[in-house]
Amino acid sequence: MLTAMCVGKSIPRVDAFEKVTGRAKYTDDLCERNALVAKILHATIANGVVKKIDTEAAARLPGVVKIVTCFDAPDRPFPTAGHPWSTDPAHQDPTDRKLLNTRVRLYGDDIAAVIAEDEVAASRALRAMKVEYEEYPPLLTVEEAMAEGATQLHEGAPGNVLKHTAIEDGDFDAAITAAKEGGGLIEVASVYRTPIVQHCHIENAVSFAYMEQGRVVVVSSTQIPHIARRIIAQALGLPWGRVRVIKPYVGGGFGNKQDALYEPLNAWLTTLVGGRVVKLELSREEVFFGTRVRHGFTIHLKSYLRPDGTFVARRYAAYSNQGAYGSHGHSIAAKGTNVFRQLYNRNDVARKAEIWTVYTNTATAGAMRGYGTPQTVFAIESHMEDIVAQLGLDPIAFRFKNLMPVGYVDPFSKNTNFFPSFEQCVEKGKAYIDWDRKRALYRNDSGPVRRGVGMALFWYNTAVWPISIEVSSCRMVLNQDGSVQIQLAETEIGQGADTVFTQMAADAIGIRWEDVHAVTAQDTDVTPFGTGAYGSRQTYVGSAAIVQAAYLLREQILLHATRYTEKPVECLDLVGGNIIEKEGRVLCPLGELATDTLYHSEHAAHITAETTAQVKTNAYSFGCTFAEVEVDIPLAKVRLVNMVNCHDAGRLVNPLLAEGQVHGGMSMAAGFGMSEELLYDPVTGKPLNANLLDYKLPTMLDHPALKAIFVENPEPTSPFGTKALGEPPTVSGAAAIRNAVFHATGVAVNRIPLTPHVLFEAFRQAGLV
Amino acid sequence: MLTAMCVGKSIPRVDAFEKVTGRAKYTDDLCERNALVAKILHATIANGVVKKIDTEAAARLPGVVKIVTCFDAPDRPFPTAGHPWSTDPAHQDPTDRKLLNTRVRLYGDDIAAVIAEDEVAASRALRAMKVEYEEYPPLLTVEEAMAEGATQLHEGAPGNVLKHTAIEDGDFDAAITAAKEGGGLIEVASVYRTPIVQHCHIENAVSFAYMEQGRVVVVSSTQIPHIARRIIAQALGLPWGRVRVIKPYVGGGFGNKQDALYEPLNAWLTTLVGGRVVKLELSREEVFFGTRVRHGFTIHLKSYLRPDGTFVARRYAAYSNQGAYGSHGHSIAAKGTNVFRQLYNRNDVARKAEIWTVYTNTATAGAMRGYGTPQTVFAIESHMEDIVAQLGLDPIAFRFKNLMPVGYVDPFSKNTNFFPSFEQCVEKGKAYIDWDRKRALYRNDSGPVRRGVGMALFWYNTAVWPISIEVSSCRMVLNQDGSVQIQLAETEIGQGADTVFTQMAADAIGIRWEDVHAVTAQDTDVTPFGTGAYGSRQTYVGSAAIVQAAYLLREQILLHATRYTEKPVECLDLVGGNIIEKEGRVLCPLGELATDTLYHSEHAAHITAETTAQVKTNAYSFGCTFAEVEVDIPLAKVRLVNMVNCHDAGRLVNPLLAEGQVHGGMSMAAGFGMSEELLYDPVTGKPLNANLLDYKLPTMLDHPALKAIFVENPEPTSPFGTKALGEPPTVSGAAAIRNAVFHATGVAVNRIPLTPHVLFEAFRQAGLV
Repeated sequence: MLTAMCVGKSIPRVDAFEKVTGRAKYTDDLCERNALVAKILHATIANGVVKKIDTEAAARLPGVVKIVTCFDAPDRPFPTAGHPWSTDPAHQDPTDRKLLNTRVRLYGDDIAAVIAEDEVAASRALRAMKVEYEEYPPLLTVEEAMAEGATQLHEGAPGNVLKHTAIEDGDFDAAITAAKEGGGLIEVASVYRTPIVQHCHIENAVSFAYMEQGRVVVVSSTQIPHIARRIIAQALGLPWGRVRVIKPYVGGGFGNKQDALYEPLNAWLTTLVGGRVVKLELSREEVFFGTRVRHGFTIHLKSYLRPDGTFVARRYAAYSNQGAYGSHGHSIAAKGTNVFRQLYNRNDVARKAEIWTVYTNTATAGAMRGYGTPQTVFAIESHMEDIVAQLGLDPIAFRFKNLMPVGYVDPFSKNTNFFPSFEQCVEKGKAYIDWDRKRALYRNDSGPVRRGVGMALFWYNTAVWPISIEVSSCRMVLNQDGSVQIQLAETEIGQGADTVFTQMAADAIGIRWEDVHAVTAQDTDVTPFGTGAYGSRQTYVGSAAIVQAAYLLREQILLHATRYTEKPVECLDLVGGNIIEKEGRVLCPLGELATDTLYHSEHAAHITAETTAQVKTNAYSFGCTFAEVEVDIPLAKVRLVNMVNCHDAGRLVNPLLAEGQVHGGMSMAAGFGMSEELLYDPVTGKPLNANLLDYKLPTMLDHPALKAIFVENPEPTSPFGTKALGEPPTVSGAAAIRNAVFHATGVAVNRIPLTPHVLFEAFRQAGLV
Repeated sequence: MLTAMCVGKSIPRVDAFEKVTGRAKYTDDLCERNALVAKILHATIANGVVKKIDTEAAARLPGVVKIVTCFDAPDRPFPTAGHPWSTDPAHQDPTDRKLLNTRVRLYGDDIAAVIAEDEVAASRALRAMKVEYEEYPPLLTVEEAMAEGATQLHEGAPGNVLKHTAIEDGDFDAAITAAKEGGGLIEVASVYRTPIVQHCHIENAVSFAYMEQGRVVVVSSTQIPHIARRIIAQALGLPWGRVRVIKPYVGGGFGNKQDALYEPLNAWLTTLVGGRVVKLELSREEVFFGTRVRHGFTIHLKSYLRPDGTFVARRYAAYSNQGAYGSHGHSIAAKGTNVFRQLYNRNDVARKAEIWTVYTNTATAGAMRGYGTPQTVFAIESHMEDIVAQLGLDPIAFRFKNLMPVGYVDPFSKNTNFFPSFEQCVEKGKAYIDWDRKRALYRNDSGPVRRGVGMALFWYNTAVWPISIEVSSCRMVLNQDGSVQIQLAETEIGQGADTVFTQMAADAIGIRWEDVHAVTAQDTDVTPFGTGAYGSRQTYVGSAAIVQAAYLLREQILLHATRYTEKPVECLDLVGGNIIEKEGRVLCPLGELATDTLYHSEHAAHITAETTAQVKTNAYSFGCTFAEVEVDIPLAKVRLVNMVNCHDAGRLVNPLLAEGQVHGGMSMAAGFGMSEELLYDPVTGKPLNANLLDYKLPTMLDHPALKAIFVENPEPTSPFGTKALGEPPTVSGAAAIRNAVFHATGVAVNRIPLTPHVLFEAFRQAGLV
């Protein structure tokens, strides 16, 4: 573990001033004023085929520069998932997207595009186009899509199943048989449902594209500039080096921008107008229906237990609603499955999991913070509470009895559970929420307004190895004053990446953080390769690249210091921005050496370092959420009274930023559990609430104070002891709230969000109202 | 010498499409629309002191954000010359500039600045300010400035002499004495005068500045981004790493933008308004009086010859008009002196040179294409013709008899005259201009309109070693398709640098030029260090960096190729974008290897290379200009009938671009010789023709077809055999024209430009009119 001078301190965000003053430049801020404006014509059916588009009237409108329809677009399917490329075809992402589609697969599918001199002209042109469709009934649920006779949405996906996998750990049937013979077996089974939700990043998807020296340049609000570049090239059939992607500041992504969204279309459009600048900015409505959403899951869980409350066998079946296009596809259901397989795997419990990822006519589901685990954890942690209730167990004791043991090593990822993180987190969470007292106290509530406390654990991996490669490259550039620019492809998308990279680089190099300048914008022409913001990978993988680059930079610095100070290199060190003798005497500031070196008449050198770190480890990030709720039974309303997330994210680089990350994740979890759901008209397949008025994203007014508590077990596989922080806080909040409602009311609600509609129905069935 | 596949071919400019379509982004194109606008209040006296500036009325005007005067500016002098920094104080540039000045040293000196919401408000504020001065008589010439009792313009410069140096090669007096005794001595003496001229780049000086994360960012039309950054930091008293300079496309510089012009002031202004974007764009008039000009020289030459036409001794005294501020100072006169010392140094001729660089109240003189040599060559090559006339010699034979011999090695620079370049160039020039026939034919002209042919040699160095360091760094970034980005700090300023770098990189790496993407904009945060466009250095020094980086890139590529192809590395090569076996069989395209390497599950690497090349050689670049003129004696007008420049610039990277460079240089030489001069009112010191109407820059209509002829002796010290190309064509044109007029009329005019005023006076004195 590296000596931490700056890591561990809550330094201010390096971009704080720019962001609070509104000066930070986002994509739209950078687009030139006379850019052409593109708008997309969206289908007004959910399932069918475009027969004809009449563009004649539209093309005659003043200001309209170009109209293209799905009949003009190249027949070249491409993948959109923001995964590292794999040269193994079997490991590549679904390749089912086209720039524009004649086969309409969702209400709002992209069937034509207009390029105009301004927004008004573009909008008028959209209204002037006439479309003829052949329409099929919309398939809005997995059940409808898998039903016999359902329209097949994609070639190669019979029954609309994108992918189906089954896994068995241990001998499932034998375990059950043995347990039955050995003293009885208790069975608990339920079905859980999670909604389609949207990321709701503040900055909508926006990009602008132009051509330069025969190449296509796309400036985009993306989490994954290097991956977006590859996908754009694939979509346009260009050599990948002919595409350049620039990523300015980004106003949130949460996984939605871990897909190539409209960058390929925008890139294509500029090529149709001779490379003029074309801007393509989505409205909030388009973001809702046309970008990505979280997969709605239907999860069947069945547990077989011994009377002592230990698992014999567990069965999991999940149906993941993929929506219209493949995007990240089956990998999201698969990641969820890993929670099932690993979280409660003690005592050689047999596990059987079967998952289906199914195309429907809803919005395309893709990556979203938590990547399948919020859904699975909602099911698993609700199910744990159902077992607890059925068996009369203590919820925490029951969990610990079956929990992944310390020392566990996952045979596939080699992930190791090094610490009793769960126990430590639960201990802190219990204390904060006053668990024991309130569990006892609220049990007796019987009035119309009751309180309850609930909890749920979460499990997460850090980064994506060994599913995909994990690489990050870093370049460092030494200035004459001893300050250093650092360049990584890992992206600042609002989460504070630039700040933690700055801190880690300062410590790794041996200079003050004020002397590290993180190059915030990525430009695939000059930014060293890395894959970007996803999988809670950046601090973990990026730190490996930073440390490796710093090692190379220091090596050069100290060799030049040997020349400059005439002392042997093994006696020298770089600490706090000074070249020192190892016993501590300052020989000169780094800046003095850097200046001498750069302008030296014999040995001039610009000291820079660049290297690729390939990370072949992964790290568990564990924790729990405790929630306290107040339920108004007659009104069927839940008020979140208190919520705490306890998390072992390894060593914290910046505690204040970490806290902010957790607060955001908890808010997202609360929305997932209590209010958010993208709804569709069952007849037309039209989204009903694709805007921030009707879609109930929680705001500050809907929350109590959110509390983040950390356990800091330094992760041994990471240079600074860090591991996943960004996504895990999103994972277990919904289950904790649901379990708190269960505690308050005795009613186990198996679907979220816990809106008044859902609760009223549940309370009615339970006889409470 | 490297195998040339692409070097030597006239490929189209890589930025041709962008530039002819107007799409290339220059500084002003990139400035945001709501930037604040800064304007400078210029002094309306040429010499004196600001006593008071009343800003009250101006400050009250709507839209005025901030006014600062010379009384607010920091008392921190800084240098402006675009030279590499030297850590040796004795070798640093004059440090006599402040952001705003109370001591007025030229008409138009910067005494206050306004920052306003728009140009109108800023202009109104300028007009509303009232200034009180103490005024002294303007010192417009070296003679006035050096006269006893003249006001001293700068501390530490008594007699207004910035610097004075004297050099003697051989024993001057002994040589003369010996020659007198040995058979007679002929003496020829004259005084030559050259004008103050301006660069007249199409894009005026423009920059905009803002702050980001506590640092100052300046986007500027500069030739020297890394140097400008250092100077801005010095001017503001900031650590150098706290400044970032970005250089977009540049619309010409010719040396004027090899100075920090208004970047320091602009940088300071943004710090006064909390880092808001402030744009500072000069008008053409401000460029004329307020940026830099070419030093006017007065040169005394005296030659001592034997009757056989060989030199015994030569004496040179030059007075260089520095104008108001130090800028590049004495180095320009010094460079001119080198022509005197080296061009005719055969037969152990003794040489004595004395030079003065003198402050005056005219525009600050700085670097301009040719850097002192157009002035000196005008004197020397006119003087050669005066000797020829006096002694009745053949001008070419006389020159060759005294010329620097092949094999000469300069003891200081180690520059070596490897080839009979002069002879080869003169041969071609003679043939093109039909010299022998016309020399004889025109001698008999006696009417009012006469023709003449004249010629002059030129001498130039390549780059600045060993006067200053010569470093260039290059970074190369390999893409998945086998294409490569190249990054250098050496700048494209219109001359075609990006194109020749592209060609050289293609050959050095072993790929097609279409697969090289030159990163055209420099950004000091990420661009490897280099010093920029000056001294005709970029192709020579940049090629060393390119070749060195390509070597490192190829090393990595071939090692990965060994892994990928399982063939020993010594059997592999990279040619034409393919990995081949050395006998020629293609094993795979580079792109296939690059993709495999980047995404390899075991050995993933982003292949990049970066290195600093320090060049410790220099190369002579020689040639000549021949001119044919028609002189209308009664009208005292010269028409340039034909002009050819013959140049050994080593191997040409891109012959068509080289030709364009030469044409531009010849045009500049013609203007210098015939029409250009910045004039001052002798009483007020006010510039009289600081605009493109009254200042007579030649246009296409003023020129005959300009002919460029090359001799390509590959320079042994250069990876691709190149040497100075950009500046030399400017050097000898004026003397060639002057000598042609002499041939036509028999009148030796010793000052330029040869305007009708000058010619009429000379013809009158000669009795022709």
